[in-house]
Amino acid sequence: MRGAVIYGPGDIRVEDREDPTILKPTDAVIRLAATCVCGSDLWPYRGDDEVNGPSPMGHEYVGVVEEVGSDVRNVKPGDFVVGSFFASDNTCEICRSGYQSSCVQREGMGGLGCQAELLRVPLADGTLVATPGMPDADLIPSLLAASDVLGTGWFGAVAAEVGPGKTVAVVGDGAVGLLAVLAAKQLGAERIIAMSRHEPRQKLALEFGATDIVTERGDEGVAKVKELTGGLGAHSVIEAVGTQESMMQAIRSTRPGGHVGYVGVAHGVELPGLELFFSHVHLHGGPAPVRDYLPELIDLIWNRKINPGKVFDLELPLEDAAEGYRAMDERRAIKVLLRP
Amino acid sequence: MRGAVIYGPGDIRVEDREDPTILKPTDAVIRLAATCVCGSDLWPYRGDDEVNGPSPMGHEYVGVVEEVGSDVRNVKPGDFVVGSFFASDNTCEICRSGYQSSCVQREGMGGLGCQAELLRVPLADGTLVATPGMPDADLIPSLLAASDVLGTGWFGAVAAEVGPGKTVAVVGDGAVGLLAVLAAKQLGAERIIAMSRHEPRQKLALEFGATDIVTERGDEGVAKVKELTGGLGAHSVIEAVGTQESMMQAIRSTRPGGHVGYVGVAHGVELPGLELFFSHVHLHGGPAPVRDYLPELIDLIWNRKINPGKVFDLELPLEDAAEGYRAMDERRAIKVLLRP
Repeated sequence: MRGAVIYGPGDIRVEDREDPTILKPTDAVIRLAATCVCGSDLWPYRGDDEVNGPSPMGHEYVGVVEEVGSDVRNVKPGDFVVGSFFASDNTCEICRSGYQSSCVQREGMGGLGCQAELLRVPLADGTLVATPGMPDADLIPSLLAASDVLGTGWFGAVAAEVGPGKTVAVVGDGAVGLLAVLAAKQLGAERIIAMSRHEPRQKLALEFGATDIVTERGDEGVAKVKELTGGLGAHSVIEAVGTQESMMQAIRSTRPGGHVGYVGVAHGVELPGLELFFSHVHLHGGPAPVRDYLPELIDLIWNRKINPGKVFDLELPLEDAAEGYRAMDERRAIKVLLRP
Repeated sequence: MRGAVIYGPGDIRVEDREDPTILKPTDAVIRLAATCVCGSDLWPYRGDDEVNGPSPMGHEYVGVVEEVGSDVRNVKPGDFVVGSFFASDNTCEICRSGYQSSCVQREGMGGLGCQAELLRVPLADGTLVATPGMPDADLIPSLLAASDVLGTGWFGAVAAEVGPGKTVAVVGDGAVGLLAVLAAKQLGAERIIAMSRHEPRQKLALEFGATDIVTERGDEGVAKVKELTGGLGAHSVIEAVGTQESMMQAIRSTRPGGHVGYVGVAHGVELPGLELFFSHVHLHGGPAPVRDYLPELIDLIWNRKINPGKVFDLELPLEDAAEGYRAMDERRAIKVLLRP
């Protein structure tokens, strides 16, 4: 089969890879209908994460089950399925508490390389959720978004305790930040402040439910959010970048007693203890337990209540994955969908 | 009047200070029945916080109202009152959300020097809570504990989302840690692991409701908590020290999705973003909104349901404050009560 492999910073190649097979009785193999490039794929692409030899890329996937192991009961060949970037058993105590991305048996999907034609999914019963039937073509981008960016934005909103009557600020205007705006809207937020300086992203944020746009960043962005919230700061702030600046912007934009939900994978972040202490914020985040939200998100998408697939503003054949990475790196695209 | 003043590390003197007076119509002046030395008073005493010239010390107090300003309505001369270490209006949006220690008008009581005979309390209506009558002498230590250490331990437990069915670990065996054990018990925790290597403190922890004692610290302490919790970590961990080691011990002892409540004033703490991200814990803490809990805590004490005053294992006249600091610094005493 064909699959995307990173050889070093800026060096993505689509090449022949061995077809995956069932290795354990709990595995499934799926044929991908679509995959995509994640903001976090840019960390190694930009040299911010080390690349140790050629590594398959991608952790977002939707597709049709080809084959299942002998222990798999919940999905069968022919099912259209969505999964998350962590495989999970969905039965352990941590999964049952809603933290499937910290499942005691979890396996990262990134190492398996989802930017490919075929994919082995471990712990298939716990990991995969089948859609009610074969989806219409126009639903596929949204279902793919549920695999990571929508679920991650959703977790950011849940972790930030977004709800009715709340003022929410979102730091980061990538696909996750934009879908955090959508999640905040769905969860009933009264006011949603999107922090973005890029016009096409501002437009999408407004479409997804943002009520205010703040273009300032860092301390100026904080001052602006305070100005919009009677000097107090937002009740809920979602951090969707992962840098020191964005984390501090999120913490400082939150009122005492308010909640920061952070879902940007932290890179070089060190939180100053004393400032955090006196900030009085709640801090929660990490890898989103997307599996927990999948049934609800699939339902919203299937019934066309939400259209998160709009974050894909560029679609390419899998063969052109390298151009997809370039387009995202140069911010020419918000998010790139790849068709195997 | 007489009052304790710090001149430099290790140099506490009780000397004549000017009697406080009503400065604003919202002030009250109280005559202290008791005050005490806090673990956080040891930071400047040990030279870990800078001392800029002679500074009055102490931020914990109970006593009788002597005089009130013209705007004060809720307390009157003759009332026995308890207050917190932050004065707060108890009416602003932040106070009403339960974060009085981040009140938009807050004033720290430390600067006013509560280790003294008399004290000016700003924002008296919001800050002070009167007891149902003049307390019996044996209740005074417990009421004094409510002024900070009990309320702080309580907030730690609330921030760590302690409740029925939960396993709780407490990092720190000072007065706050011990009273966090008491709070966890009151809030219905199923299992309470006190981390302490000091026998008299272990004894008090068990008396307050601890079910397990862990003597190991750092990573060994973490391993022990995991061993006691099926490898997962505690649901709720209360951090009551404020050092890098204790914060990391608390975070690492918490299961994914669990809650860390941290109330030790952070000293030199830097939290590694990526580890925090993958820990999946909730982090909340800061200066305890003691004012929010005072009515409930006073009620529990008044009706002799709890006896937090047991943390005072040394009582001295205010004149001997210097010896009180020494006893706590050398860990000869858990907490020292001073009688003006």
